[in-house]
Amino acid sequence: MAAPSMPDAGVNAKSQPTKQRLIDAGMRLLLKHGYNGLGIQAVLAEVGVPKGSFYHHFSDKEEFALQVLDTYMDAVHQGLDASLGDTSRAPLARIRFFFENTRDAYDQEGFLGCLIGGLGQELSGVNDVFRQKIDACFAALAERLAGSLEEARQEGAIARDSNPRDLANLLVDCWEGAALRSRLRRDPKPLIAMVDFYLGALADSAQTDIR
Amino acid sequence: MAAPSMPDAGVNAKSQPTKQRLIDAGMRLLLKHGYNGLGIQAVLAEVGVPKGSFYHHFSDKEEFALQVLDTYMDAVHQGLDASLGDTSRAPLARIRFFFENTRDAYDQEGFLGCLIGGLGQELSGVNDVFRQKIDACFAALAERLAGSLEEARQEGAIARDSNPRDLANLLVDCWEGAALRSRLRRDPKPLIAMVDFYLGALADSAQTDIR
Repeated sequence: MAAPSMPDAGVNAKSQPTKQRLIDAGMRLLLKHGYNGLGIQAVLAEVGVPKGSFYHHFSDKEEFALQVLDTYMDAVHQGLDASLGDTSRAPLARIRFFFENTRDAYDQEGFLGCLIGGLGQELSGVNDVFRQKIDACFAALAERLAGSLEEARQEGAIARDSNPRDLANLLVDCWEGAALRSRLRRDPKPLIAMVDFYLGALADSAQTDIR
Repeated sequence: MAAPSMPDAGVNAKSQPTKQRLIDAGMRLLLKHGYNGLGIQAVLAEVGVPKGSFYHHFSDKEEFALQVLDTYMDAVHQGLDASLGDTSRAPLARIRFFFENTRDAYDQEGFLGCLIGGLGQELSGVNDVFRQKIDACFAALAERLAGSLEEARQEGAIARDSNPRDLANLLVDCWEGAALRSRLRRDPKPLIAMVDFYLGALADSAQTDIR
């Protein structure tokens, strides 16, 4: 789903605790290479610490990737706080704002899409821990978006008989598909095309109420 | 995108040429395990042939996976021929029929989603051959769907000022996101929820024309 602003291996990186630097490097490398394509050695090389330092913090690669996902989701929730919490905007405008910010975050990473969707796609055929965790990530995101959609419903900005939770799940799903296409093309267009279509359809549904 | 009916390792498998049996086994295993998670040894074991037999037909794993993708896409195009070519249905009903058939094909595989989207997600960060090939697969699918959407536009079933090609690309993207969620949940609901929303939005857009 939404990417946090990826930390880069920049000038201040050395001031972070080692565990955080490992997670930051893991986030960048997992997004690009995927889980099976990620070597712990590459993480160590990027951070400049020995193997023992990695295993001091993480029991294995799976635990490491799960903690990377937690960190990623924390940033997503912060992004949701900032955008959905901005009550100076109408509910649907808050949703648009969230996804525009997410698109900007993807831009900083070179449009590699969404880490959650990427790991979900790669691992959910064979690993139930990731499958269930990633499904729960999407459900949590949808739950928050549903809150704004419910406000929009009460204000008449979307059809009165619409189901905010269903619509929120649909939005998360469609975003993930657009994020994949954006990753394939290294292009933001599929992202905003999807949001425009979705929000346009909701607005039309409210018009149908009025008729 | 759309899954062909996956061949299973059933009673008639031995009657197929070895190359076809390797591709069929590769299709099932790639869908479940992904590219990096696929061992050639597992393919050989499933088909019951020695390593030399594999390398007689394929230079390496990458060429093998690319041929699996070609076979998968051939089946998708056959599915499109059957559904979009059924002119006894209205253009939008043909599109629905195609995706319902695809959902049924996913069902046969245990809802593991779409092989094209899966490989695209896993490999497009690091492998430009797959990235471009998979983008081309999606573009080809969208092109075909756009034909039916253009018919719908001419008949007034969708808004006159809509852009069938843009709408078709959006449909492919949203389907892929729904296929990922379906894979995470082993559940068909996200698939048809997406198609219902999309086709409902197009119908509403035509209503807006009439007003």
